[in-house]
Amino acid sequence: MIRFNSDYTEGAHPEILRLLEETNFQQTEGYGMDEWCEKARDLIRKACECPEAEVHFLVGGTQTNATVIAAALRPYEGAISADTGHIHVHETGAVEHTGHKVLALPSVDGKINAGQVKKCLEEHFASPAFEHTVRPGMVYISYPTEYGTIYTKEEMEALHGVCREYGIPLFVDGARLGYGLACSECDITLPEFARLCDIFYIGGTKVGALFGEAVVVPDPAILPNFRYMIKQGGGMLAKGRLLGIQFTALFTDDLYMKVSKHAIEQSDRIRAALKELGYRIYIDSPTNQQFFVIDKAKYDELTKEFALDLNCFLENGEVVARACTSWATKEENVDRFIDKLKRI
Amino acid sequence: MIRFNSDYTEGAHPEILRLLEETNFQQTEGYGMDEWCEKARDLIRKACECPEAEVHFLVGGTQTNATVIAAALRPYEGAISADTGHIHVHETGAVEHTGHKVLALPSVDGKINAGQVKKCLEEHFASPAFEHTVRPGMVYISYPTEYGTIYTKEEMEALHGVCREYGIPLFVDGARLGYGLACSECDITLPEFARLCDIFYIGGTKVGALFGEAVVVPDPAILPNFRYMIKQGGGMLAKGRLLGIQFTALFTDDLYMKVSKHAIEQSDRIRAALKELGYRIYIDSPTNQQFFVIDKAKYDELTKEFALDLNCFLENGEVVARACTSWATKEENVDRFIDKLKRI
Amino acid sequence: MIRFNSDYTEGAHPEILRLLEETNFQQTEGYGMDEWCEKARDLIRKACECPEAEVHFLVGGTQTNATVIAAALRPYEGAISADTGHIHVHETGAVEHTGHKVLALPSVDGKINAGQVKKCLEEHFASPAFEHTVRPGMVYISYPTEYGTIYTKEEMEALHGVCREYGIPLFVDGARLGYGLACSECDITLPEFARLCDIFYIGGTKVGALFGEAVVVPDPAILPNFRYMIKQGGGMLAKGRLLGIQFTALFTDDLYMKVSKHAIEQSDRIRAALKELGYRIYIDSPTNQQFFVIDKAKYDELTKEFALDLNCFLENGEVVARACTSWATKEENVDRFIDKLKRI
Amino acid sequence: MIRFNSDYTEGAHPEILRLLEETNFQQTEGYGMDEWCEKARDLIRKACECPEAEVHFLVGGTQTNATVIAAALRPYEGAISADTGHIHVHETGAVEHTGHKVLALPSVDGKINAGQVKKCLEEHFASPAFEHTVRPGMVYISYPTEYGTIYTKEEMEALHGVCREYGIPLFVDGARLGYGLACSECDITLPEFARLCDIFYIGGTKVGALFGEAVVVPDPAILPNFRYMIKQGGGMLAKGRLLGIQFTALFTDDLYMKVSKHAIEQSDRIRAALKELGYRIYIDSPTNQQFFVIDKAKYDELTKEFALDLNCFLENGEVVARACTSWATKEENVDRFIDKLKRI
Repeated sequence: MIRFNSDYTEGAHPEILRLLEETNFQQTEGYGMDEWCEKARDLIRKACECPEAEVHFLVGGTQTNATVIAAALRPYEGAISADTGHIHVHETGAVEHTGHKVLALPSVDGKINAGQVKKCLEEHFASPAFEHTVRPGMVYISYPTEYGTIYTKEEMEALHGVCREYGIPLFVDGARLGYGLACSECDITLPEFARLCDIFYIGGTKVGALFGEAVVVPDPAILPNFRYMIKQGGGMLAKGRLLGIQFTALFTDDLYMKVSKHAIEQSDRIRAALKELGYRIYIDSPTNQQFFVIDKAKYDELTKEFALDLNCFLENGEVVARACTSWATKEENVDRFIDKLKRI
Repeated sequence: MIRFNSDYTEGAHPEILRLLEETNFQQTEGYGMDEWCEKARDLIRKACECPEAEVHFLVGGTQTNATVIAAALRPYEGAISADTGHIHVHETGAVEHTGHKVLALPSVDGKINAGQVKKCLEEHFASPAFEHTVRPGMVYISYPTEYGTIYTKEEMEALHGVCREYGIPLFVDGARLGYGLACSECDITLPEFARLCDIFYIGGTKVGALFGEAVVVPDPAILPNFRYMIKQGGGMLAKGRLLGIQFTALFTDDLYMKVSKHAIEQSDRIRAALKELGYRIYIDSPTNQQFFVIDKAKYDELTKEFALDLNCFLENGEVVARACTSWATKEENVDRFIDKLKRI
Repeated sequence: MIRFNSDYTEGAHPEILRLLEETNFQQTEGYGMDEWCEKARDLIRKACECPEAEVHFLVGGTQTNATVIAAALRPYEGAISADTGHIHVHETGAVEHTGHKVLALPSVDGKINAGQVKKCLEEHFASPAFEHTVRPGMVYISYPTEYGTIYTKEEMEALHGVCREYGIPLFVDGARLGYGLACSECDITLPEFARLCDIFYIGGTKVGALFGEAVVVPDPAILPNFRYMIKQGGGMLAKGRLLGIQFTALFTDDLYMKVSKHAIEQSDRIRAALKELGYRIYIDSPTNQQFFVIDKAKYDELTKEFALDLNCFLENGEVVARACTSWATKEENVDRFIDKLKRI
Repeated sequence: MIRFNSDYTEGAHPEILRLLEETNFQQTEGYGMDEWCEKARDLIRKACECPEAEVHFLVGGTQTNATVIAAALRPYEGAISADTGHIHVHETGAVEHTGHKVLALPSVDGKINAGQVKKCLEEHFASPAFEHTVRPGMVYISYPTEYGTIYTKEEMEALHGVCREYGIPLFVDGARLGYGLACSECDITLPEFARLCDIFYIGGTKVGALFGEAVVVPDPAILPNFRYMIKQGGGMLAKGRLLGIQFTALFTDDLYMKVSKHAIEQSDRIRAALKELGYRIYIDSPTNQQFFVIDKAKYDELTKEFALDLNCFLENGEVVARACTSWATKEENVDRFIDKLKRI
């Protein structure tokens, strides 16, 4: 079985394993106060051109989302999100568990836009009964989205603008950030991206690391005392160095972008093949996830050899399948997959 | 600087790194549904002689404590704990964050006893205003405790008995479980231990792993649907295999106990030296933590070369220092430490 | 200014004030343990023909909803609700504050149906990633709904059936229960209603009382230890007798239904007038709330004399206005309102 | 049975009932936005000499404590309290339910002092592991305390001073505020009191009202958007006017202090009698609660006619009984009680 069902089916980039092994018997402080974490923070600040940023390392995405959101909101506030947002549909209510409502807006291809956000805020404050409803306290988007799409620079600027206007933070879930920045449609650099976010994270788990998400807060005044929140939320790794070491490897010699580009190249090959073979593309994604429509019988045939993610059933009985590539995807496995697509 | 300030100053046992590397490009399912997790679960069930047990893997101790406690209690219930218990003093209110009070009882050397627990329960139910107070819904103890002490089998049986009597679970934080089971004063086997707990965990982070805690629930009916809780609490590792691989290594060829014994041998050497040199032992610990009283000036001198944990100041100005060993402690570093103790 | 903007614009039915005054210097136990509460509980059990029911008194609707839902769910569960449900839109996230997600389903005229609920449950359990999503743990409906509509007996039976099938409770918000049971379209008796709910409450605040909601749990095993929850949620009134006295008055000589019928008669007069005058009825409500479409200029003219609730703006600039009657509505004020409607 | 077991055994002062009846058919806005609430707010601002204060009305004490504390703290902060504080022992974990730990300090006669608070704060910030512990975010005291004692002006100033020094609010639970201000040992006026608190409330439930607590925030910037919190916490009474009307009555013609003084006079009579009769006073209280030691057999005899609160058992088998007076206590009932005390 060859797996394209998610982007976390392997371990870590060999360079990360090498560095973990090399440093294994170094003795360090715990909880992210060690020199490797400090080094990784510096590398990330440089890559983002945010010399004043605070950088915090957490273990996984759901944990990071819940911790950041709980830190940024007051108890009566909620997080605006696409109705397809990870926090709304795939985290077992982790945000609600911290006491906050997700204010879901209808999405197109996984995205929401500044106009919707502005309307949501305007309507809240215009209502005479506003205190009887959850106050929108932040905007959450994913980049790339759960459907592999990305926001343009202009769209990001518009979202950032409305957040500024209402004084609420824009928080970007970058679990797959590398795959967004590395794709052909991306018109934004990491420093530009960092300038347009109040809080964002650089995903490691899906992009080369064993695990780990690096939260970047360009203006740290927005999340004071965040380390207490990490500890309280169970995200403060005792051997925090493991996160520092991994992000040091990823942000040395541009490794993070190199592995991201590899995933995109392989995904683009699948995308091209699907189009060429006449498959209906369900959502046209420039990043590492491809969503395509396929007859159920063919899907069953295909998945005898290749694990895919069954996204949903369509009304006509066809299925929407998702194929993911990653830093670890082997070119020959993509060859085989395309070959099989041709034959079924 | 040689570190004895905690038991998580290094990476992982080389065998764990080796297995991680060997399996790095295997493709697996995520979230703990892979074959390595299944294998580790089997090994643990066997070691505990609990064929029916559910075994769940989480990343760290605070996360595990909060997740288990939130799963086991109803909203109006609290967890009985020693006032020195990790959940009461060193988790930034992670348990309260899930809505539950820690019901702290006075402790002796980090321990509480069955009589105290029984009294607490009796008093709650005898009070005409019981509904105005938090209902004791479980008992939390650490084995070994935060002060390195352990419960005897008889003490465990008594605690287990009172929990049975009141129909509440006994939950044991085993972040350092190996160091308890491996010490000379331990009169209980792992299977006996498992029989006396309703829920406990086998700590990996401090005992040879990079990270990871294995929650064992001998009678799974006590924690139904626990995987939802893990996900909601941010503890479900995407690459769950990392936990399965580590615990497979630890529970193969008795590695977990071997590394534990090594830590105890080194700790016993420090303990013997401290006694021989006339240091006042603050709490007499048979496990991997030694608490001793030392003049502040000597402490400052000692910690120029050896990192220790300053536990507290005594009224007379002396300090209580903690020295930890672990699976990774080098014999020659203990030699040097003892040598230094002699010279100051 | 004559108020039709809500159903809580006056104090209480004079009989309630009389009984409060008559009993004012009686000395009683606190917290709902007094003889008036006991008497009211008995009267309610009789009215519901539920001799085994537990009856609890709380102060207000939001508090009752949050307390019941928190008591009935496990942490990873959410409450299925219409997207127009009070808990989803008008309680400032009180349910999320207790850690639970509201699982909103699209509604028609404020209602959801058994088919939708069944589909939601089926989809949850069919998903291989079900543990990554909130588990539907109960169904919440309002009777009457926030739009004044009611469920038929058949619809209630179907909802009850699907809840039984999946073993989750059906919880009915009866903040305006009397106005539902008293309306001409109602085809269900209070005992039949009670049989089809697992938990429901009889609203006092909007139906004759100063305040107070009576939670009825026909099978008390569903909400064990609920008094702890009431206390924790801040809903246990020190002078609980005030609730017992009020519900005793309301359930003596059928007062609850008498005052409800009065509200319906006045509302029906408004409804008839609106139809006769050619106003577009936005949602056709047989209960005490009328929703009608009106030109904004006319609305402004109307609301110089009569307070209404502006429900929403339509795309064409017209507004949807809500007019409420209640136990306290004066016939002559309805006359004046209808007269004004004719003249604008 | 004559009740001295609590201070909420009757309804409300007749003047309150009269005003409720007089205004019963006035139509008003809901949720505290009516003219009676506005009037009561003005009266309270004047009585406190706090022209800028925000005044909010909630229904009960537990609800008020939990709502204020949740509003004032960040998620990782806790409330410092006496270990005898109501929030620590008698609210079923309502504060923890909102996610916050109560940081209990040892108390003397129900009181804590500025030195303890300062030490607690100093130790938190001095610890290198401070982020692993709950951050003290406010100080909670009761005035009078749960044991009937009061803080002197000097003690209040010292507590206020340490709170200023650390930039955290001082929150005072004034469920029995009138009984403190009216007692002979009180050396502080209401305006002085208001100046030394950041947030406090004026208890109505125990001091003449049917229910209701008036939260005063002299500098409203400390609790921004507090009405959202009240709504979310279930404390926003639909017919908010009921609170406005009651506090209008209480703060007209000095009624609040008049009824408070009556309770104190009656309590002082009991206190004098107890001393004269040689009963051991357990805690010497100048307010409306008297705690005295009595033989169990005598207690049983006494409570055949007079309901008392059994506070605790002493080691020698004697009991500590509590007798409460209130605004409603009848002089002749105190006569009878003293007479009985003499005869047993």
